[in-house]
Amino acid sequence: MRIDVLTLFPEMCEGVFGTSILGKAREKGIARLNAVNFRDYANNKHSSVDDTPYGGGGGMVLKPEPIFAAVEHLLDNLEGQSESVDELPGMTQGESTNPRIILMCPQGRTFDQRIAEELAKEKHLIFICGHYEGYDERIREHLVTDELSIGDYVLTGGELPALTVIDAVVRLQPGALGNESSAVTDSFSTGLLEYPHYTRPAEFRGWKVPDMLLSGHHANIEAWRREQSLKRTLERRPELLEQAGLTPKDHKLLERLKAELNEARAGSRSEEEKASF
Amino acid sequence: MRIDVLTLFPEMCEGVFGTSILGKAREKGIARLNAVNFRDYANNKHSSVDDTPYGGGGGMVLKPEPIFAAVEHLLDNLEGQSESVDELPGMTQGESTNPRIILMCPQGRTFDQRIAEELAKEKHLIFICGHYEGYDERIREHLVTDELSIGDYVLTGGELPALTVIDAVVRLQPGALGNESSAVTDSFSTGLLEYPHYTRPAEFRGWKVPDMLLSGHHANIEAWRREQSLKRTLERRPELLEQAGLTPKDHKLLERLKAELNEARAGSRSEEEKASF
Repeated sequence: MRIDVLTLFPEMCEGVFGTSILGKAREKGIARLNAVNFRDYANNKHSSVDDTPYGGGGGMVLKPEPIFAAVEHLLDNLEGQSESVDELPGMTQGESTNPRIILMCPQGRTFDQRIAEELAKEKHLIFICGHYEGYDERIREHLVTDELSIGDYVLTGGELPALTVIDAVVRLQPGALGNESSAVTDSFSTGLLEYPHYTRPAEFRGWKVPDMLLSGHHANIEAWRREQSLKRTLERRPELLEQAGLTPKDHKLLERLKAELNEARAGSRSEEEKASF
Repeated sequence: MRIDVLTLFPEMCEGVFGTSILGKAREKGIARLNAVNFRDYANNKHSSVDDTPYGGGGGMVLKPEPIFAAVEHLLDNLEGQSESVDELPGMTQGESTNPRIILMCPQGRTFDQRIAEELAKEKHLIFICGHYEGYDERIREHLVTDELSIGDYVLTGGELPALTVIDAVVRLQPGALGNESSAVTDSFSTGLLEYPHYTRPAEFRGWKVPDMLLSGHHANIEAWRREQSLKRTLERRPELLEQAGLTPKDHKLLERLKAELNEARAGSRSEEEKASF
């Protein structure tokens, strides 16, 4: 797959593109990662990419021309240089990439694992990252195919959000992870939060690994882990349980866990009441 | 404020720490940003930081010792070297930093702007970033003060999430943003999504800036922008309206916008029905 990031800070992307899973995916030819400085497409003598907003107010707004020009230059080049298209895994020469053009912005759809899986099937993604500024609305209306947000918090730019989406998408490409099973058992992939993990030493500063995990009884360990996943999800993110595809056995277990949790919470409330006297 | 990031990939952080708002905050002495490779604290000849999980299964688990040792070394050094504490804005010599020790993980509280504002008041944050692996549960139970997730998607490591949180927190420090007003009018800060922005040219490829914004009538422009914010939030993230602190005038406006939206949606449904014949 090919991924282009339009940004005023390509150096923020290059450091991340070269490291870890993204660096390996690039080396193996699984993903072509490319950062483009759209300031190079500013068609004015000061190379300015932003301007004050019509109607007044603070802040600056990214102008439409440089971003339209940068995207169109990418698309033209792709069509002209057949060898660059040829390098894309899964693409035949001359085939149109029909890229998704994604604007990173707080007003976008909230990114989640389902969207990661959807984007992982694409051949070409183009990300547009603003920085401090707003975007001229015509970029939103007439250029992009998607608007994405990674969460409800304010950031200085779209670069970290774009890199986050890219990491989530590239790790889903076949061959990107060394150990394929880890893509499957992660939190959100199973719909539940992960159970607790332990490794050596069996005792660290007096804190021991649960006996169950040292028992060697695999069926019991599986059952313990399922219960721990359900318990953690119930305590921390109960809304996830609705979509998690639970078995009748899970539901029965949940009833018990809910009763225990209510009891523990009632207990800690009455402790607090005692303490306040 | 001081921020330390424990990671196996310090180079992922350094690129981002040197750029844009974080780079400027560092230069101005607003934030001390430091990446620590916790592999340096692995007390074994292979410098190994992870091991297979007790109870079997795929993947690797981060061992407790290197992470405990790295955090403790940071804290010891902070107490010993009074000049380094002295450099921290707002801290007097010898004062304990009492840091928040934050584990980035999918099981954590979902990060949002309220948590960013809470963390922005702290003097010292320590982030722990795993990579592919799980964490030994004893890190979670006996070392960290907070667990945070930036959203419901699976990533290869905690570095991009930690950098995202750091960006959201540092931009809230006084003096970090050039234009203080932009911290206030952003999406999520007002509780509503932002209204559309436009800048020059007034006409681009036939697409014009709304006449209202060229009118120069500030009260009308303010009213238009408020309506656009309400409209966009209603269309894209209606659940945000409940927490947004709306005025009676906003509520009246919303009634009209809801009626218009329902009408438009009913219209597009009947268009689809016609088209399917």
